Amino acid sequence: MAAHKKARGKLSVESKLPVNNRHDLSIAYTPGVAGPALEILKNKKLAYDLTSTKNGVAIISDGSAVLGLGNIGPEAALPIMEGKAALFKRFAGLDGFPVVLSTQDPETIITVAKAIAPTFGGINLEDISAPRCFEIEERLKKELNIPVMHDDQHGTAVVVLAGLINALKIVRKKKEKVRVVINGAGAAGIATAKLLHKYGVKNIILCDSNGIVSKGRKDLNNIKKEILRITNKKNTSGTLRDVLIDADVFIGVSKARLLQASDIKTMANKSIVIAMANPVPEIMPDEAKRGGAAVVGSGRSDYPNQINNVLAYPGIFKGAIESRVSQITDKMKIAAAEALASVVKKPTANRIIPDPFDKKVVLAVANAIKKIARDKRK
Amino acid sequence: MAAHKKARGKLSVESKLPVNNRHDLSIAYTPGVAGPALEILKNKKLAYDLTSTKNGVAIISDGSAVLGLGNIGPEAALPIMEGKAALFKRFAGLDGFPVVLSTQDPETIITVAKAIAPTFGGINLEDISAPRCFEIEERLKKELNIPVMHDDQHGTAVVVLAGLINALKIVRKKKEKVRVVINGAGAAGIATAKLLHKYGVKNIILCDSNGIVSKGRKDLNNIKKEILRITNKKNTSGTLRDVLIDADVFIGVSKARLLQASDIKTMANKSIVIAMANPVPEIMPDEAKRGGAAVVGSGRSDYPNQINNVLAYPGIFKGAIESRVSQITDKMKIAAAEALASVVKKPTANRIIPDPFDKKVVLAVANAIKKIARDKRK
Repeated sequence: MAAHKKARGKLSVESKLPVNNRHDLSIAYTPGVAGPALEILKNKKLAYDLTSTKNGVAIISDGSAVLGLGNIGPEAALPIMEGKAALFKRFAGLDGFPVVLSTQDPETIITVAKAIAPTFGGINLEDISAPRCFEIEERLKKELNIPVMHDDQHGTAVVVLAGLINALKIVRKKKEKVRVVINGAGAAGIATAKLLHKYGVKNIILCDSNGIVSKGRKDLNNIKKEILRITNKKNTSGTLRDVLIDADVFIGVSKARLLQASDIKTMANKSIVIAMANPVPEIMPDEAKRGGAAVVGSGRSDYPNQINNVLAYPGIFKGAIESRVSQITDKMKIAAAEALASVVKKPTANRIIPDPFDKKVVLAVANAIKKIARDKRK
Repeated sequence: MAAHKKARGKLSVESKLPVNNRHDLSIAYTPGVAGPALEILKNKKLAYDLTSTKNGVAIISDGSAVLGLGNIGPEAALPIMEGKAALFKRFAGLDGFPVVLSTQDPETIITVAKAIAPTFGGINLEDISAPRCFEIEERLKKELNIPVMHDDQHGTAVVVLAGLINALKIVRKKKEKVRVVINGAGAAGIATAKLLHKYGVKNIILCDSNGIVSKGRKDLNNIKKEILRITNKKNTSGTLRDVLIDADVFIGVSKARLLQASDIKTMANKSIVIAMANPVPEIMPDEAKRGGAAVVGSGRSDYPNQINNVLAYPGIFKGAIESRVSQITDKMKIAAAEALASVVKKPTANRIIPDPFDKKVVLAVANAIKKIARDKRK
């Protein structure tokens, strides 16, 4: 708090060109700017070569679903977006531009994001509540030709998948054979289910606060109905506790302290527990281990295996912007997860995921994205 | 051009907090950001104390009226907005955030600016064509509680007024007695006419490309009809050349090479010529002098008396944001012009306006704004 107050916020927009005399002024502003302006007028793509913001990322939020804080609105969400911009610079060298919105209406958010899009190389949607986040992202992906990613969905999904890839190696189980229970059917839960399915996990069951998401339920929104196409194929119904029995993997993106060691004991042998509720997980890592879990991850930095989005989004946007792709595809996300997993040379139960400060991380992820982009162009 | 290409644009968004280890990360991002977020949730105004962008300025443009280039659209306008951001930092220490828009529809621009407003301390509208610029600015001033200023209008008007204040001292004429001819009825011309009127200039005649703006004309838009309330009170009609005869002041915000020395000779004794068409003025300064003008200004940096907006907008926004006013009023603009004029201790024909690199400029202007804000609160 003191640090934030002392610095008066976290960002500074600096000029890369000197402005110390009239000559500098004539280069940085008129008449010098006419040169790059006219070049870009002839070929819009040159904006990537001649401006900074076009190599940068808009971090757009309406403050409706801030991790651990809820619907706090735009002004209060600003410190989080500034933090995100600081991390974009630190981990990917990308310029991040916070944009918080006075509206929570999906159509208006779409209008605004489309209108400001020519400024930026990519759009990171942040902390927008489900189910609005799905429609907003989908529409923007369709209607814009710069990469758009809702990080709460896909950043999380990519890092979870990376952790799962290494965890499965440790317990020697196959993605096609395991049963995965995801608790939480918001942005992160839905995106994780989809990505795991694309990756080849065949048996996924999603739960929300009313239990297993199944065909019989009358209270499902469209997104949850749609996810039934790829989850819960046997149409099991019941509670989270019911479905945990003999499950191989638990992934929690829900609420604090939902489970106990006794619940983990009901899971299959060599179970994997990734409990990411923030700041207090669905089950504390120590307790999950007492329940017999072979591999345990959480969202916390004070335990091993922190599932942290910062492992994914800097590299994903770096790769996407530098290869100037118009979409971040599922293939790219899977490649990013595999690259992230492969940064850990010898995975152990206490190290399924690399350290965010490992310099290899951002390059591995960015290069994975770039490779897909190159392959596609061939 | 080489400088722009080498730097790959002109801006860098830097973190003011270090992010070198897990501890730093926990302060700059979760869980550290929850502190400032919750404080702002309790009191929105604390966003000024705890975030950077709320002390910064959005530089919003649709690229429809870029100086000397015309309607070049958003991508091509980006280098200009980045240059503007560089100057905001250099001259006022303010963070500028370029926002170029894919739309030129006034309603959508208003919607977008209102939506992103909670991010910023102020909005600088830039290079938006007349007459749309008037409606957009007026609506935003009414509907937002942060300062909004279209710099092409008011930045220009303030610096012209500052120059005129000193020029009138030199020729020993009174603002109430002079006849001022303004050629150009776009953003800058209209705003200059309004500000000069507010300052107390009684006799102003505006011309556009069809001659004197007068009641008889059928081709006037609403803005030009409205300006007749404060200009051309005798309802003169005719051409620019007609109205220049015996005029005391010519202010040009129009086109290159419209006038010759012989036209200036028809003006009153000790005439003042401020010819700002860019990059080639309505009349070159040398030629205006040959025509007998006592004081000559232009938009060019290679002649004395450069009328440059950078003398005004950094200090205006600095003053407005630091005193957290919701409006930049006419009173503030006049105070800014007077402060700017007073930076030149002993005005001469070759020095009616200070140098942009004179450190006293931004403080003089900002303090003038702050003083009005304080007086209003009393």
